[in-house]
Amino acid sequence: LVISDLPAAAAGVFTQNRVVAAPVRLDRERLPSPDARGVVICSGNANACTGQRGLDDARRMAAVTAAAIGCRAEQMLVCSTGVIGRHLPMPRIEEGIGRAVSVLDSSAAALDRAAHAILTTDTHIKVSTQKVTLTGSEVRLTGFAKGAAMIGPNMATMLAFVLTDACVAAADLAMLARRAAESSFNAISVEGHTSTNDTLLLFANGAGRPLDSTALERFGSAVTSVCTDLARAIVADAEGATHLVIIDVEGLRNDDEAKRIARAVADSPLVKTAIFGADPNWGRIVSAAGYAGVAFAEEELSLWLGDLPLYQAGTPLPFDPPTASAYLKNNREIHLRLRFTLGPGRCTFWTSDLTYDYVRLNAEYTT
Amino acid sequence: LVISDLPAAAAGVFTQNRVVAAPVRLDRERLPSPDARGVVICSGNANACTGQRGLDDARRMAAVTAAAIGCRAEQMLVCSTGVIGRHLPMPRIEEGIGRAVSVLDSSAAALDRAAHAILTTDTHIKVSTQKVTLTGSEVRLTGFAKGAAMIGPNMATMLAFVLTDACVAAADLAMLARRAAESSFNAISVEGHTSTNDTLLLFANGAGRPLDSTALERFGSAVTSVCTDLARAIVADAEGATHLVIIDVEGLRNDDEAKRIARAVADSPLVKTAIFGADPNWGRIVSAAGYAGVAFAEEELSLWLGDLPLYQAGTPLPFDPPTASAYLKNNREIHLRLRFTLGPGRCTFWTSDLTYDYVRLNAEYTT
Repeated sequence: LVISDLPAAAAGVFTQNRVVAAPVRLDRERLPSPDARGVVICSGNANACTGQRGLDDARRMAAVTAAAIGCRAEQMLVCSTGVIGRHLPMPRIEEGIGRAVSVLDSSAAALDRAAHAILTTDTHIKVSTQKVTLTGSEVRLTGFAKGAAMIGPNMATMLAFVLTDACVAAADLAMLARRAAESSFNAISVEGHTSTNDTLLLFANGAGRPLDSTALERFGSAVTSVCTDLARAIVADAEGATHLVIIDVEGLRNDDEAKRIARAVADSPLVKTAIFGADPNWGRIVSAAGYAGVAFAEEELSLWLGDLPLYQAGTPLPFDPPTASAYLKNNREIHLRLRFTLGPGRCTFWTSDLTYDYVRLNAEYTT
Repeated sequence: LVISDLPAAAAGVFTQNRVVAAPVRLDRERLPSPDARGVVICSGNANACTGQRGLDDARRMAAVTAAAIGCRAEQMLVCSTGVIGRHLPMPRIEEGIGRAVSVLDSSAAALDRAAHAILTTDTHIKVSTQKVTLTGSEVRLTGFAKGAAMIGPNMATMLAFVLTDACVAAADLAMLARRAAESSFNAISVEGHTSTNDTLLLFANGAGRPLDSTALERFGSAVTSVCTDLARAIVADAEGATHLVIIDVEGLRNDDEAKRIARAVADSPLVKTAIFGADPNWGRIVSAAGYAGVAFAEEELSLWLGDLPLYQAGTPLPFDPPTASAYLKNNREIHLRLRFTLGPGRCTFWTSDLTYDYVRLNAEYTT
């Protein structure tokens, strides 16, 4: 449970999947909101593909929580993550809500417990906090998230929550949430499978003073920064991953083209297995860029692996394969840079490698 | 080497990657052709991302072969498959061409040798032959292909060759080739990575009588049938695969929508690992359909695994997980059926599962 003592402006960004979990449908109806009181989250069951009964269950989760903390049902949001296609065990859920309400607490330990409670196959919690001074007063942002696979983007099997005491209108919060998601949760990928449950929720309880437009801009940057921290943490914890791969694409006609190319490279199982195997098989990277649906000629593309130039304006460069392989072997963070000569469009994208453990986790367990 | 004693009508279908191997560039210039004499194929090196020198090398392969068999260089086509970004070892290639010319032969054993010679990580050859009686005379079609990964579609790291004694104009052959590729090589996927080298070549040497329009239609069906055989054989031999997955999608507004949904399901690593692990985790299939970019409501979708209904008009059906798991465990060919209620559009798509061996082959070897 995440509960705001004060009614809070709230906004959300949700999965773009056509198949949408019941709690996402519910939250979409209720957001943006000027006076949300919180969110009840269940982990282990997605409450997706569960028909009318699933929707009724999500509504009931909100109503039971609202009754327990003393607010209207419409002020309460709901998130779920886990296996798809099974009905929620409502007696257990309702009992759990009662117990969670009884231990609500504003300590750092409570944040830690909440960050743990939402995990599924994650191996550790993802938390990011920031303080910014705006219009003379300090504003705090606290974010936490879960996610380790079915990472989309657009968005991911991920839930993320950003809580702040800033005073921001719900409509502004909605705009900042979309912007933050675009360069964080929508710029990561584990295997390219968009989930039915992805949710980012922002709550701003307005304890501070209203923000002028300059302060709002700076506040937006802080939101993006917290979301980017959480997004990177999700990819770094990707199921079975041994590498965090940072893909910088620049020189396209616009940012969207750069993102399409970055995503094609990020999602290629051939690129991901090569990185796992420390094999500097750069042809897989260039050929993935080539099927992203973005027009370019080979002469307009150059490629670096870390600092090592491999391909320049359409021509392969001589390089020392053992050096390139050692770079892949000895670093957990790998940088790929694709430079085009077509314009100012750019994107930074994060992905993971594809390993035996990814296959094991997804073949041997129902997640 | 594939050589036609008579000048043959020839047509091709090629990769849609923006990064295109040198031999593909060359063949695109030369096709369709009314009087091609054959194709020289090298396996192990893709001659892709090799700049001007790569193009010169491809031209030289054609010229050396043409000189050896006694035709114009423009009558000879070229294919390559293998690792990207390395220059061809031209002295070895030229010596090999000379040796291949000296053992040209029209026996079944020669076809078998050619089908073996083009393989890379394939574990066995792919050959399909058909005889059809058209306009009173028998027409023969012989197809062979290679491919086991970087299988796109559009198309695949695959080379396929269909040889026939039918008498067909080059323009008609080009039309039939495109049509055949659409429902065969462009309806398969191993990991969704489109290669730089994909090529389907058709040669019709015209030994038979010209075909009227009815006969041409039947001949086209035979071409499609040979191509479908070869495409299925490629997926069945996918790197590390333990299952051939046949995805039937029906009831969309048009065939293209059905194919987009089939492809999203086929390319999802979460679907592929679940099938490998015999885990009837059908939520992964439904959620993959949901991010294919095709508009539908959950109530418009039902799903079967083999004969077992799992999801009906947006609602999960009770089913026996051990029975579903046994179906996955005990069958090498797995059928998924997604039925929508939106129109007559349909597609059959073939893919493979994602296994430890796929990761091993692509992490530990430079392919």
